[in-house]
Amino acid sequence: MKRPSGRAADQLRSIRITRNYTKHAEGSVLVEFGDTKVICTASIESGVPRFLKGQGQGWLTAEYGMLPRATGERNQREASRGKQGGRTLEIQRLIGRSLRASLDMTKLGENTLYIDCDVIQADGGTRTASITGAMVALADALKLLKKRGGLKGGDPLKQMVAAVSVGIYQGEPVLDLDYLEDSAAETDLNVVMTEGGGFIEVQGTAEGAPFQPEELNAMLALAQAGTRELFTLQRAALSD
Amino acid sequence: MKRPSGRAADQLRSIRITRNYTKHAEGSVLVEFGDTKVICTASIESGVPRFLKGQGQGWLTAEYGMLPRATGERNQREASRGKQGGRTLEIQRLIGRSLRASLDMTKLGENTLYIDCDVIQADGGTRTASITGAMVALADALKLLKKRGGLKGGDPLKQMVAAVSVGIYQGEPVLDLDYLEDSAAETDLNVVMTEGGGFIEVQGTAEGAPFQPEELNAMLALAQAGTRELFTLQRAALSD
Amino acid sequence: MKRPSGRAADQLRSIRITRNYTKHAEGSVLVEFGDTKVICTASIESGVPRFLKGQGQGWLTAEYGMLPRATGERNQREASRGKQGGRTLEIQRLIGRSLRASLDMTKLGENTLYIDCDVIQADGGTRTASITGAMVALADALKLLKKRGGLKGGDPLKQMVAAVSVGIYQGEPVLDLDYLEDSAAETDLNVVMTEGGGFIEVQGTAEGAPFQPEELNAMLALAQAGTRELFTLQRAALSD
Amino acid sequence: MKRPSGRAADQLRSIRITRNYTKHAEGSVLVEFGDTKVICTASIESGVPRFLKGQGQGWLTAEYGMLPRATGERNQREASRGKQGGRTLEIQRLIGRSLRASLDMTKLGENTLYIDCDVIQADGGTRTASITGAMVALADALKLLKKRGGLKGGDPLKQMVAAVSVGIYQGEPVLDLDYLEDSAAETDLNVVMTEGGGFIEVQGTAEGAPFQPEELNAMLALAQAGTRELFTLQRAALSD
Amino acid sequence: MKRPSGRAADQLRSIRITRNYTKHAEGSVLVEFGDTKVICTASIESGVPRFLKGQGQGWLTAEYGMLPRATGERNQREASRGKQGGRTLEIQRLIGRSLRASLDMTKLGENTLYIDCDVIQADGGTRTASITGAMVALADALKLLKKRGGLKGGDPLKQMVAAVSVGIYQGEPVLDLDYLEDSAAETDLNVVMTEGGGFIEVQGTAEGAPFQPEELNAMLALAQAGTRELFTLQRAALSD
Amino acid sequence: MKRPSGRAADQLRSIRITRNYTKHAEGSVLVEFGDTKVICTASIESGVPRFLKGQGQGWLTAEYGMLPRATGERNQREASRGKQGGRTLEIQRLIGRSLRASLDMTKLGENTLYIDCDVIQADGGTRTASITGAMVALADALKLLKKRGGLKGGDPLKQMVAAVSVGIYQGEPVLDLDYLEDSAAETDLNVVMTEGGGFIEVQGTAEGAPFQPEELNAMLALAQAGTRELFTLQRAALSD
Repeated sequence: MKRPSGRAADQLRSIRITRNYTKHAEGSVLVEFGDTKVICTASIESGVPRFLKGQGQGWLTAEYGMLPRATGERNQREASRGKQGGRTLEIQRLIGRSLRASLDMTKLGENTLYIDCDVIQADGGTRTASITGAMVALADALKLLKKRGGLKGGDPLKQMVAAVSVGIYQGEPVLDLDYLEDSAAETDLNVVMTEGGGFIEVQGTAEGAPFQPEELNAMLALAQAGTRELFTLQRAALSD
Repeated sequence: MKRPSGRAADQLRSIRITRNYTKHAEGSVLVEFGDTKVICTASIESGVPRFLKGQGQGWLTAEYGMLPRATGERNQREASRGKQGGRTLEIQRLIGRSLRASLDMTKLGENTLYIDCDVIQADGGTRTASITGAMVALADALKLLKKRGGLKGGDPLKQMVAAVSVGIYQGEPVLDLDYLEDSAAETDLNVVMTEGGGFIEVQGTAEGAPFQPEELNAMLALAQAGTRELFTLQRAALSD
Repeated sequence: MKRPSGRAADQLRSIRITRNYTKHAEGSVLVEFGDTKVICTASIESGVPRFLKGQGQGWLTAEYGMLPRATGERNQREASRGKQGGRTLEIQRLIGRSLRASLDMTKLGENTLYIDCDVIQADGGTRTASITGAMVALADALKLLKKRGGLKGGDPLKQMVAAVSVGIYQGEPVLDLDYLEDSAAETDLNVVMTEGGGFIEVQGTAEGAPFQPEELNAMLALAQAGTRELFTLQRAALSD
Repeated sequence: MKRPSGRAADQLRSIRITRNYTKHAEGSVLVEFGDTKVICTASIESGVPRFLKGQGQGWLTAEYGMLPRATGERNQREASRGKQGGRTLEIQRLIGRSLRASLDMTKLGENTLYIDCDVIQADGGTRTASITGAMVALADALKLLKKRGGLKGGDPLKQMVAAVSVGIYQGEPVLDLDYLEDSAAETDLNVVMTEGGGFIEVQGTAEGAPFQPEELNAMLALAQAGTRELFTLQRAALSD
Repeated sequence: MKRPSGRAADQLRSIRITRNYTKHAEGSVLVEFGDTKVICTASIESGVPRFLKGQGQGWLTAEYGMLPRATGERNQREASRGKQGGRTLEIQRLIGRSLRASLDMTKLGENTLYIDCDVIQADGGTRTASITGAMVALADALKLLKKRGGLKGGDPLKQMVAAVSVGIYQGEPVLDLDYLEDSAAETDLNVVMTEGGGFIEVQGTAEGAPFQPEELNAMLALAQAGTRELFTLQRAALSD
Repeated sequence: MKRPSGRAADQLRSIRITRNYTKHAEGSVLVEFGDTKVICTASIESGVPRFLKGQGQGWLTAEYGMLPRATGERNQREASRGKQGGRTLEIQRLIGRSLRASLDMTKLGENTLYIDCDVIQADGGTRTASITGAMVALADALKLLKKRGGLKGGDPLKQMVAAVSVGIYQGEPVLDLDYLEDSAAETDLNVVMTEGGGFIEVQGTAEGAPFQPEELNAMLALAQAGTRELFTLQRAALSD
């Protein structure tokens, strides 16, 4: 098997995490997984949604979008269609759950973190790139919140999370699928992990033939190795 | 560990599959997983969505809903809110992908199958019950389509699919979570399988602590055993 | 004239009222008028809409829906269309007005009753079956509210209401039209009555030729006799 | 009993029907029932809705609206709320059904008539004024269509229709309720009739106590006399 | 050059401003610029939008609509389409900004003025007619508010505003374009002015060839002269 | 007067036009006016909107959006609100009209150009930056269309357009307002010009006091000089 990009089966694309990409947000990151490019911002607002009021804890919510021409063919703008599609809602729910897993909400105080992931160029793996990049934007926003004196109860960041896609391409498990692979893969699996090696989310779909337990385990092993690299890259970006 | 229902860790709830539950649809099933009750219908319409026109193949699409008082507290009716929520869209996309995996679309001709899963009483596991019940409604609709002479290219049903939820409850893997378990589970995993033992969908979420590969494997084993029982029950229902 | 069902002109279909049909709602009824089947639930929430706040009285509001395949041809799901149709809104406004006529709101306290009528199988007369069934669910919910100590001002139930359709079919007045009759009727009249024999709602439409006063009176007489039977059936169900 | 306006129980308000009120529509009428003022236009477009294509017959559809400040308190504009309310949909369905009853669609050819009724000032009875005025606009539009040679199959106008409200006010049946009476009436009944004295629509609602058959008959008699006057006024307007 | 209407280049259409056109609104004007007819109402409600609460000042907001058959071809009703179009939003934002320029909000108290401009017949220049007519309705509403004792801080009316369209038609600048001119004009310019001769809004669009500074100045001069006449007509109407 | 940025009254911000910013679109530009950054893409699709079918000419349509955190405070995402706001619609209509003025549609063939302007960072002047940058993306898309053989009738690009904002800040006319100036300006004027020195759009608004003809002329002179510089920068970018 030869990957279209020439990468080894367990090789990530070239990853770049650029902090402070835009100037207004409390955390702002451009994350690039090869040609997939996502602007991830973390915004802090005081107050929490109604269902949490008065409980002394915080919240995090995420939204996801794609510029209409982030893709090979132009997609209709969701704002002009008048609603977000099912795929968009599914992805932003995943981003939100994943990042909430990194936080101890009781230490956040009654603050809400808004994560916005906007894909400016898509080449496969936009949801996992979003999670990985937004984690860094979130860490930056928390630092700023601490500096402003908004964190009284200790650091709410329990653990970093990162995400990567894996799949079965031409019968073999591969890491970090690009668009060419993704559209031809037999199985597609998105994995969100913690730095400690636990799973936060595992979402696998057989596009063609069903997949077997051994294949699942091989893909998970690739994802574990891949996220270890991503954690290193996140840490490196944050220490710049 | 004691399950609230007193069931063994690997024990399904009492499952009932009632065919011909309503009279109009080509396939109509009431599926009950304990107190979770879902009406699943399969409707046949000739023609296909625009993106498939002229390709000589069929399509299947699924929708999911809940009666407002299917749950302990009344939920606002989605039709009066003016949109389906993210959870609804996520579930109906899952049902659609899962059932499409059971079909050879090229043998279906230019027909569209509409699957409707409407929860009339919810007690956990509505999405997996929906898939399991809708599979039977779909099989009935295909039989009728064949009888009417609408299937020229052979049987489009490649394989049965069934689905079940598994999870980690009080530290132990359990099969087929009811609402009490579901709302307290550390991890929640929905698994869609084929009769041949392959995975169609695996969707796991850590609600609290991350889960480990061993836990994932233990849950998958429970799901495999559980779906084997479900396939037996589907076959029994279809042979009545 | 021979009715398609073979019934006499003044004969109701077989009526069944099953209480406690689902487990979560304060009142839950499956009502069947022949092949027309509607799940009616009554839910109690404390508080009232803004326009009633602080007046010490309660409110009742109703919603109506149909499963997409309750009918001979599948209807598009209103939740996915993004709005309720005019027919739906018209029916749920009728149900709400009719049931409010049964209550003394000042004795209800600041509570809101939500009535949900969801048609799982349609064969004509869904709106009148809904009112007749929801009346029983409402009575059950009020009993529960009383038991919970939520009714301080005496029984808010002033009078039972029931509803039935009548029409002119092949030139003759008939009671309780099924779908075959309904779609061929010259005139269609829905009547909501109180147990005391008064009219709450009278809604008649000439589908073909205009109808004359004598025809209207003949239809109203059928409706009076029909609702008398329905009140008996409601009382019987409530005394089980 | 004294009516707030000083009118006799069987007395209509001052009625005015002004044809050619605006210049663009094929039929355009300002109808005034006392202080209730409605602009009714009839527009002709060639073609019919999809469900009628190729059947050689026409269609009529109606829409209804109110200027935001047609009423004592400003109502939110439905266009800015993003949807028409239930009351609006109910009224425009009634207007459409009533005017369709005046036409022989097979003589209309594949043309669609759009009726628009826009209330510029409301003082009770807007739906019945709309029907009565729109009937005249419709007659004008048909004349124009005939003149243009668009009617090959004979005159599609089978019969004129007119509508009026009646009610029980302070225990007595009265004709053509204004807002003061309407908001205090025990029963409110809208009646649509043909010139031949038949009923097209009868819609009665008990606002307080249920109404009795004798009361219904008394109200219907008032409506019959009232619509007879309205037919005279429509004819007079059309012969100007 | 000959204008289709035979008017001189600097000649307004026949302008009529009818006060108290409908009875409910605090200010109600029918404004006619030739065949363009707009009902303008000003409604007063106590309270202000959230972003102004507690600042002791008022607000004004405007909405604009067209009856479906105000135009030569019927337009779909925005309420039934479920949203206001871009043109509508643009116009109502313009009306709102223009009329806010006439007020000293700090003298208005915590009151909101709702301006509704509804075009009942369109023949070009509806937005400028709306502003000119709504100014008079606004003045009437303020008088009433004063009379009711609702103005403690002095007169909030700083200055009258009026608006007119100008354009380049067949190479020459003309005042107050009607529909025939508007649809053929090379340039279309809407100008909102104060009685003191200052500009509030200048919105010019080249429909064909770009326009030159000299043309712009010639058009602005026409607009200045035209609005001077309009101020005279507004004053005359208000002194009736 | 001292501008917050220290610029001279007639000095543009630092302008950068980066072509081929993303890889999928036929034309893709990042335009920066100081800290205002907009991604502008031009997409080509064959076919035209219904109202132009069969006329042998093309069309251009534009959409505009802002990332939620492009601004100092986070704005709600329009896709999740379910509609585009009035400001957005107004801006995208302006962009569309402006760029259509650059084209001879009859030479474009039956193709549609979609312009998407998405603000990733806002600091005043986003609409004028969008027009200026999208002009370059459009030129690139036309070159590609020509290369692909899609332009049979000659070059559809009649003239370049560019846009800039001017205003009255602290009593003096200034060019290219940034956010600090914009939010404090007495008058704000957006000007779209052709390379030949004609005006395409002039949109001026008095935020505080009305502006006078002399002020308008002074602002227009600044805009003329400013757009001359912008045309030079566009040409330079296109010749890279």
